[in-house]
Amino acid sequence: MLVAMTTLLPLLLLCLSGPQTPESSQVSPAAAEVPEGQVCGLGAAFHAGRRAALCELVGSGWMVFRGLDETRDYLPFRQDKTFWYLTGVESPRAALAMNAATGEELLFLPRANPMLEVWEGEKWDASDAWIPALTGFEDVRDVDGLEDFLAENLVPGEVVWTSLAAHIGLAGCYDRAEPFDKRAARDGLDGRPSRELALEAALEETYGVKVKDCQTSLEELRRVKTPEEIAALRRASDAGAASMRAAMANTKPGVTEAELGALMSFVHLREGATGPAYAPIIGAGSNANVLHYLDLTRTLAADHGVLVDYAPEYDHYVSDITRTWPASGEFSPRLAELYDIVLEAQLAGIAAVKPGATLDDVQRACNGVINAADVRQHVLHGVSHYVGMEVHDVGGYRKPLEPGVVFTIEPGLYDQEAGVGVRIEDVILVTEDGCEVLSAAVPKQRSEIEALVGTAGLLR
Amino acid sequence: MLVAMTTLLPLLLLCLSGPQTPESSQVSPAAAEVPEGQVCGLGAAFHAGRRAALCELVGSGWMVFRGLDETRDYLPFRQDKTFWYLTGVESPRAALAMNAATGEELLFLPRANPMLEVWEGEKWDASDAWIPALTGFEDVRDVDGLEDFLAENLVPGEVVWTSLAAHIGLAGCYDRAEPFDKRAARDGLDGRPSRELALEAALEETYGVKVKDCQTSLEELRRVKTPEEIAALRRASDAGAASMRAAMANTKPGVTEAELGALMSFVHLREGATGPAYAPIIGAGSNANVLHYLDLTRTLAADHGVLVDYAPEYDHYVSDITRTWPASGEFSPRLAELYDIVLEAQLAGIAAVKPGATLDDVQRACNGVINAADVRQHVLHGVSHYVGMEVHDVGGYRKPLEPGVVFTIEPGLYDQEAGVGVRIEDVILVTEDGCEVLSAAVPKQRSEIEALVGTAGLLR
Repeated sequence: MLVAMTTLLPLLLLCLSGPQTPESSQVSPAAAEVPEGQVCGLGAAFHAGRRAALCELVGSGWMVFRGLDETRDYLPFRQDKTFWYLTGVESPRAALAMNAATGEELLFLPRANPMLEVWEGEKWDASDAWIPALTGFEDVRDVDGLEDFLAENLVPGEVVWTSLAAHIGLAGCYDRAEPFDKRAARDGLDGRPSRELALEAALEETYGVKVKDCQTSLEELRRVKTPEEIAALRRASDAGAASMRAAMANTKPGVTEAELGALMSFVHLREGATGPAYAPIIGAGSNANVLHYLDLTRTLAADHGVLVDYAPEYDHYVSDITRTWPASGEFSPRLAELYDIVLEAQLAGIAAVKPGATLDDVQRACNGVINAADVRQHVLHGVSHYVGMEVHDVGGYRKPLEPGVVFTIEPGLYDQEAGVGVRIEDVILVTEDGCEVLSAAVPKQRSEIEALVGTAGLLR
Repeated sequence: MLVAMTTLLPLLLLCLSGPQTPESSQVSPAAAEVPEGQVCGLGAAFHAGRRAALCELVGSGWMVFRGLDETRDYLPFRQDKTFWYLTGVESPRAALAMNAATGEELLFLPRANPMLEVWEGEKWDASDAWIPALTGFEDVRDVDGLEDFLAENLVPGEVVWTSLAAHIGLAGCYDRAEPFDKRAARDGLDGRPSRELALEAALEETYGVKVKDCQTSLEELRRVKTPEEIAALRRASDAGAASMRAAMANTKPGVTEAELGALMSFVHLREGATGPAYAPIIGAGSNANVLHYLDLTRTLAADHGVLVDYAPEYDHYVSDITRTWPASGEFSPRLAELYDIVLEAQLAGIAAVKPGATLDDVQRACNGVINAADVRQHVLHGVSHYVGMEVHDVGGYRKPLEPGVVFTIEPGLYDQEAGVGVRIEDVILVTEDGCEVLSAAVPKQRSEIEALVGTAGLLR
């Protein structure tokens, strides 16, 4: 990989030996003509709708949201999920200011940087005339002017809204990022606040405003998915289902946990996904009993069951699928025994889903099967969490289910003594009259699984 | 993926409906018996040698290094490279204190957390009796006692050493992380210092010491690779070569840039690599002229050349390989013309490598071919950077080459008008009497490439 000359002085010195300075040969597109390949999230209308809904919930006052900076590593940029939800803007260093009462809204983008575009291609900037047509923001400004804008428009003593929740990128979840940020803040040898709390402090100190957190409103919006979001969740689950089927088909004794993960990541990307929703949990034999097992160091033996919990992110929405199958293709008696109970419990949970029911009802339905089978001692976790932009998505867990709510049902049984663990997990969309299993394309009947395992040879 | 009950309160409430609390069923291993699968980096002796060398360079005073916290995302932990180089310890929340004069050294690890081990498997902690045998650290303590240790041992007014350079994980480089950290620090709506500068401030304020940066000494050590490091670099280049060959073999018109990237990532992981050294740069047609092109949105056409710059990290060391080939398997006249000049320039650069030469000599050798062909107007960048734990590795660029130094030679020519770009890049190890091309297993003669392209069908 090349070294960017602007960032590594020694190479710059080398390059001074000749006229090798990059020159911008890229021409700005004609006004309002959107360059090929540039998209605005799930469409400008979807994001405008989310902004309008948030303004309505919040009622009055300026709202300020900052997108993320360029990546700190040599990896592609991934926008903070809150910022993306409200704008569809994937560009680094963007910001949004909107007034909940007046509907005024401004998008801030970086200043044009022709040298950067030679190195990295088209970058969204404040001088790109096609941004309004693509994003629906009529007022697009240079982000270097954000602080001046705030100084001119924020009124000391008044409320300014933002989200104080941890920003989340690919494979991120609030429930992991928030404790991370808190540990740094209270660490005697660190002590730094989160980026969000730093923003809160800067707004209050510099402009004399009172910052309020609109995260609860955002979570309430995010809990119920729109048709655009459901379509994205479907894409994610389709890609996840394709990779899970490929993993089953390519399972043979001698294959490693890591190889199954590599194959699944490949299929995710080939199917159009952005990357992992979370790191692959692939446990052979007793590793199935380590709930978030990530080491992937074991080779599958003929008597192993293998528990695979892995799914991708696609267009900022994720899937979350788990299946368990025998490495040999044939269920051992103990694996079959636990499998049948878990599957029956999961199907009972799915049958309990309908508008007006609660996640507690789903849990109780699963528990009924588990209790009847007298295997409660092998239960280690609850069965549901929301799914959306995050794999453990936001939203109140005690609210009644309603159409558009998406969550998982994932009962599991873990027999530590026998070294056998089983979990079955699907992504469930609540519909008008019950639910739809978005990940239904992955087999879960024992006979279907036995027919599929070992039928392909990409790994051995 | 399961929700850890300790982090998401609503699920915890659900779980209270029954006795489903995780219980630690894992038994601590017998004292000094290292559990299967636990390794200490490139071996305890290698890391002890690096500590001893650093102590010798620094001469006197306490040195304090902190490893990274758990990941903020649901991704596997990857240690900060400086901390790993000195310890081989991959555990989160570790720290190292050593005295450059006395050789005293202490490893700090987290306190045992049985609940976490139910969820994530074996974790290194201060109570694991096998840590000294594995790591060579005889004095292993609970990291919660680090601040007390510092209070007892640091002498106000005296010098304490640490690295103030940005910490770097997988796919990271100092030359990208450092500007990122500086942008945050000078951002009027952020203002947070880097983790390293926060540590400096905490040490100076709390213990009254004078913190000094030993990064220059670390960089001097890291510039010349030991046999263990060269072996790891070889593993990384072997995995990179396998994936580049697979990409060539599976190239056909109709394949997308993203699919080639997905396939290469799969082969990296299948060959045992940890992950990408950097994001895939895969440019079809005119995208080859975008130097760090990461979008990967184009489908290969029969008249496209494709430039692929992608390699993995393996055991904390990276490779960095670029090849350019025709999508159809047959070089077009313009692609062939540029290709032959670039290859001749690269071979001239390689021929200039020997102990005592400089990177400037290598650049001049490449320039000679470029100038003779009268194509300087198509040059956009210099040809070399060091390679090691980072893809743009540290070290002084004006020092004479010596055995154990590893760097790339990557001349390129970019004809914007024709939409044709060519770059050829290999990883070069300086040896006693010249050099070895660590990535030589990837074809670069046109005839070899033409014989390989399109011979496999994993993608189409």
